[in-house]
Amino acid sequence: MKKFIKAPTKFYFHYPFPVTVVITKWEDKINLMSAVWHTQLSFNPPLYGVSISPKRLSHEMILKSKQFTLNFLDYELMETVAFVGSTSGRDIDKVHVFDIPIENGRLVDVPVLSEAYAAYECELHDVKEYGDHTLFVGKVVGVHYDEDLYYGEKFHPLVEKIFPVLYTGDEVYLTTDPSTKKRYGKEEVKEFLKRWERE
Amino acid sequence: MKKFIKAPTKFYFHYPFPVTVVITKWEDKINLMSAVWHTQLSFNPPLYGVSISPKRLSHEMILKSKQFTLNFLDYELMETVAFVGSTSGRDIDKVHVFDIPIENGRLVDVPVLSEAYAAYECELHDVKEYGDHTLFVGKVVGVHYDEDLYYGEKFHPLVEKIFPVLYTGDEVYLTTDPSTKKRYGKEEVKEFLKRWERE
Repeated sequence: MKKFIKAPTKFYFHYPFPVTVVITKWEDKINLMSAVWHTQLSFNPPLYGVSISPKRLSHEMILKSKQFTLNFLDYELMETVAFVGSTSGRDIDKVHVFDIPIENGRLVDVPVLSEAYAAYECELHDVKEYGDHTLFVGKVVGVHYDEDLYYGEKFHPLVEKIFPVLYTGDEVYLTTDPSTKKRYGKEEVKEFLKRWERE
Repeated sequence: MKKFIKAPTKFYFHYPFPVTVVITKWEDKINLMSAVWHTQLSFNPPLYGVSISPKRLSHEMILKSKQFTLNFLDYELMETVAFVGSTSGRDIDKVHVFDIPIENGRLVDVPVLSEAYAAYECELHDVKEYGDHTLFVGKVVGVHYDEDLYYGEKFHPLVEKIFPVLYTGDEVYLTTDPSTKKRYGKEEVKEFLKRWERE
């Protein structure tokens, strides 16, 4: 049964969506938050965007430092992702309280999470306000990754080994089912079109 | 074993990522493409961004029509998603060839997919070039959704009923595993902090 509503102001219809942990640093302060509004924007140059509310401490810190890292954690570490998403760096020191292992970035002065399966070091490329959030566009200057989890020259993820944290928008998380893996690409299209032309 | 590489120009480290089917219409031509670079950008006003290469027909069509729809399909329809992602509307009429059921939009003159569990009708709000792609920001003027798949006043997805199409970037698709569902939010943080303060 299909329903229709006009312009909603809270909407989660496209969820679940993957979560990234944004790390920021300004002077001696390090902060972590989780974000579900993020996307790749360009291959060359490598650009990635993350949308953050001006209410967040991370927003203020990125504007000052012009750098951040994006960290992707396995579902085993879902509680870390959820913890940093449900607390404010204004109230607590998340790295200390939740005891999260970090290490220095190589090309930016912001840490990455030691246990992330992948982490992007970003230099701020653009800042754009869209409604009640700000889109921070980072140039991906470096990538940390676990080589056992990717294959091929272009480093595609092995779905049998990577379990991303997905969020539904109501304090509920889940991950992927590798047994549902299916391939469909140029070969399959060719086969389909051959059958179609015969009919 | 953690590796590090500098600025990659092809990168899929953060995949798998959900797929949306973008529909465009200009004069009598209707086109569908799948996109994995997309994100919500604002609640109020409701804004959603999708990043599209200038090489794509859809890019040209959005610039002309200033409207598009975003359609979210269940994994049962993965082949439809993959088909429209592996073909060009310059070569074939995808709706006709793949026999995809569509219906008219209510507030925009662009169709939505009849079988989508959710579809956003978007009016073009902003266009911004980022590297080799263009970010099209749409104002979500209306939402089609299947009411049996969402709960609560804010319409959160029921993970037992919605199986999004996720893409790894190498013609490989998969979906979610509802048995991995876990809750972690304000209550759990409170419990954690209580234990932490006692220690």
